[in-house]
Amino acid sequence: MNTLDALYSELTLKTNAKLVLAVMDGLGDLATAAQGNLTPLEAARTPNLDALVRQGCAQGRMIPVAPGITPGSGPGHLALFGYDPVEYQVGRGVIEALGLGLELQPGDVAARANFCTLDANGLVTDRRAGRIATSVCEELCAKLAARIKKVGDVEVIIQAGKEHRFVVVFRGKGLEGPVTSTDPNREGLPLAEAKPENARSAAQKKTAKAVAEFYRQALPVIASHPKANGFLLRGIAHQPAIPLFEERYRLKPAALAVYPMYKGLAQLVGMAKIEGPQTIQEQFERYLAEYDRYDFFFIHFKYTDKYGEDGNFEAKKKAVEEFDAALPILLRKQPDVLAITGDHSTPCAVKGHSWHPQPVLLHSALSGSDKLERFTETGANLGSLGVFEAKYLIRLMQANAKMFDKFGA
Amino acid sequence: MNTLDALYSELTLKTNAKLVLAVMDGLGDLATAAQGNLTPLEAARTPNLDALVRQGCAQGRMIPVAPGITPGSGPGHLALFGYDPVEYQVGRGVIEALGLGLELQPGDVAARANFCTLDANGLVTDRRAGRIATSVCEELCAKLAARIKKVGDVEVIIQAGKEHRFVVVFRGKGLEGPVTSTDPNREGLPLAEAKPENARSAAQKKTAKAVAEFYRQALPVIASHPKANGFLLRGIAHQPAIPLFEERYRLKPAALAVYPMYKGLAQLVGMAKIEGPQTIQEQFERYLAEYDRYDFFFIHFKYTDKYGEDGNFEAKKKAVEEFDAALPILLRKQPDVLAITGDHSTPCAVKGHSWHPQPVLLHSALSGSDKLERFTETGANLGSLGVFEAKYLIRLMQANAKMFDKFGA
Repeated sequence: MNTLDALYSELTLKTNAKLVLAVMDGLGDLATAAQGNLTPLEAARTPNLDALVRQGCAQGRMIPVAPGITPGSGPGHLALFGYDPVEYQVGRGVIEALGLGLELQPGDVAARANFCTLDANGLVTDRRAGRIATSVCEELCAKLAARIKKVGDVEVIIQAGKEHRFVVVFRGKGLEGPVTSTDPNREGLPLAEAKPENARSAAQKKTAKAVAEFYRQALPVIASHPKANGFLLRGIAHQPAIPLFEERYRLKPAALAVYPMYKGLAQLVGMAKIEGPQTIQEQFERYLAEYDRYDFFFIHFKYTDKYGEDGNFEAKKKAVEEFDAALPILLRKQPDVLAITGDHSTPCAVKGHSWHPQPVLLHSALSGSDKLERFTETGANLGSLGVFEAKYLIRLMQANAKMFDKFGA
Repeated sequence: MNTLDALYSELTLKTNAKLVLAVMDGLGDLATAAQGNLTPLEAARTPNLDALVRQGCAQGRMIPVAPGITPGSGPGHLALFGYDPVEYQVGRGVIEALGLGLELQPGDVAARANFCTLDANGLVTDRRAGRIATSVCEELCAKLAARIKKVGDVEVIIQAGKEHRFVVVFRGKGLEGPVTSTDPNREGLPLAEAKPENARSAAQKKTAKAVAEFYRQALPVIASHPKANGFLLRGIAHQPAIPLFEERYRLKPAALAVYPMYKGLAQLVGMAKIEGPQTIQEQFERYLAEYDRYDFFFIHFKYTDKYGEDGNFEAKKKAVEEFDAALPILLRKQPDVLAITGDHSTPCAVKGHSWHPQPVLLHSALSGSDKLERFTETGANLGSLGVFEAKYLIRLMQANAKMFDKFGA
């Protein structure tokens, strides 16, 4: 733990406060001339957010990781959960496994895998096995899972994904990543050997050995398939040791997320997953029902990101309006501290995630008022929170909940 | 390399983007009642900057080094080039040598020197030798240079500066700084002995020995001069190992600077120096001519700083207007990313460099619009970039050029 985290811990008080972090995924956007110099958030009709802002909110903008760095969902959410995303790096295998709904355990090593085509000499001729159908992938994975339960004393878990993609989890004592990928990175080369990244790590050596043994057993099982007769393993790493959310913040946390990836990220830090709700209305209703059972609610809304990725300005604007329309449900049991933000920006003009600081709104009895009329990117530039690293949001939420003792006399 | 720099490196992609960093030296200023509460940038007529802002720019203010720290040109520019100026400290001797146009080589140790007056007992009676005329300094330096080519196996290069100031460069194998100054720091004391700062460094010992031998040979050469019969050596250090700009950012860089100091700083990080242009019009014209040959252009405009140092508000305002008038030349080949800023503030009210964050403007297809009308200090306070450390500017430029891969899944 670094000095500052240790200080926060030392000052943290247990209270009865309720905190809500509502994430409109990829919320931030860019004002461009093509859209009348407005962002979707600015163009949207948001009477309920507007009313909240007029009641008194602090606004600002958050740097998801570091200036100029575009985060994936993993680092974006870890920062929102208060974990430095550079310090706590999560391997692609782990993220994919979580994304496919696998329940990882501490020490598990996960690899993202994809089927590939090998020629008679064992050279990779197609790194994606002609993008076989998902149903074919599922059949092959079922076949592998039926035949291979263990390699040595290491349990193997295989989960099919979309098209040629799947995930392999190695579970057992004394395993550790990262080990190098078996992907030769271009066609015409043989599969690479998985090697410990740190040659002196016995745990990495054991993992590399398990990978090799898995290949020895698995390749014959699929050898007769015309396209998918081989596979590549990448991002082979263990679930990093992440301090549990509840211990770190003295808040009992629950996640209300629809998509597996976000449930998985919440699970990574030890949040309870509340299953069932499919719409933001249902998520907010469920929050009301669970209100007494938890102190901290992470509520994830996907569609702002989805339509940003599509470059669909109108749909992203409508997604914001959908969130806004549902907000009064949440406010029936107003939490002590409410933060509304994104995990990063997904500007329609970019059609993907970006580095632009996302706007954030903080509402509590102690948030004060920035005297703004609405919650927008341009307004957030003028807010009292300034531009700050996203990992500090939860500390501001805790402070607004009076969860910190005074530092020094 | 620190963790964050390593992460940036790992994510950096090679592209065909063109990036331009145009520096109005000492641009930032203070609004004072004496000048109608406007800064020179605010008072200036800047139709071309205004038009650029209305096309869509992100603005903010940059802390050159750390809050409250006033940088010299060295740290100011290193930060703009993306190097932490506290991590990469360049000795005053090296800066002075670069400023006098000397071409330093890796391993060279440079000292800033000034003539002083010694009495019959060898005590310093005037640390500046009565501020002798520059012509006298040049004569004495020529005499020293003619007599002393080497001390042991170490080559000596002597270059006169203004008044009593000059520079001595020690070039040879196995040299290293820093060694302590020979300046007793007040009059009435003898010259101090140059000593290794790290007593266990053989290279520092060798440098100290070379300094002592240089004194042994040099003092007799100037002994008969009535005022300048001694000299002090300060800031004795080698050119630090600075990662090359091109490797660090995957951008082939060129510098268009008129003054030797800025050419030298550009050279320090491995930029190509484009010689010839004397005015900002000529610099921008030359940028057009060299457009295809480089990826990154550093264009340095001195006069905002110069008139700020003079406390001449009207002249500083006119310098901004001169830059603005030339801007359309640059925009004939609009780069993918254009940043316009200063290396620090040089407020007329201070008549010198200051710590006040300088305004910065960033223009690209992905900069978005902060909906501001002009580029000013007060406007920059409202911008989406917020207040940030200058060393991150180049990372934001790279991000705007789509030069970073996504971080994490």
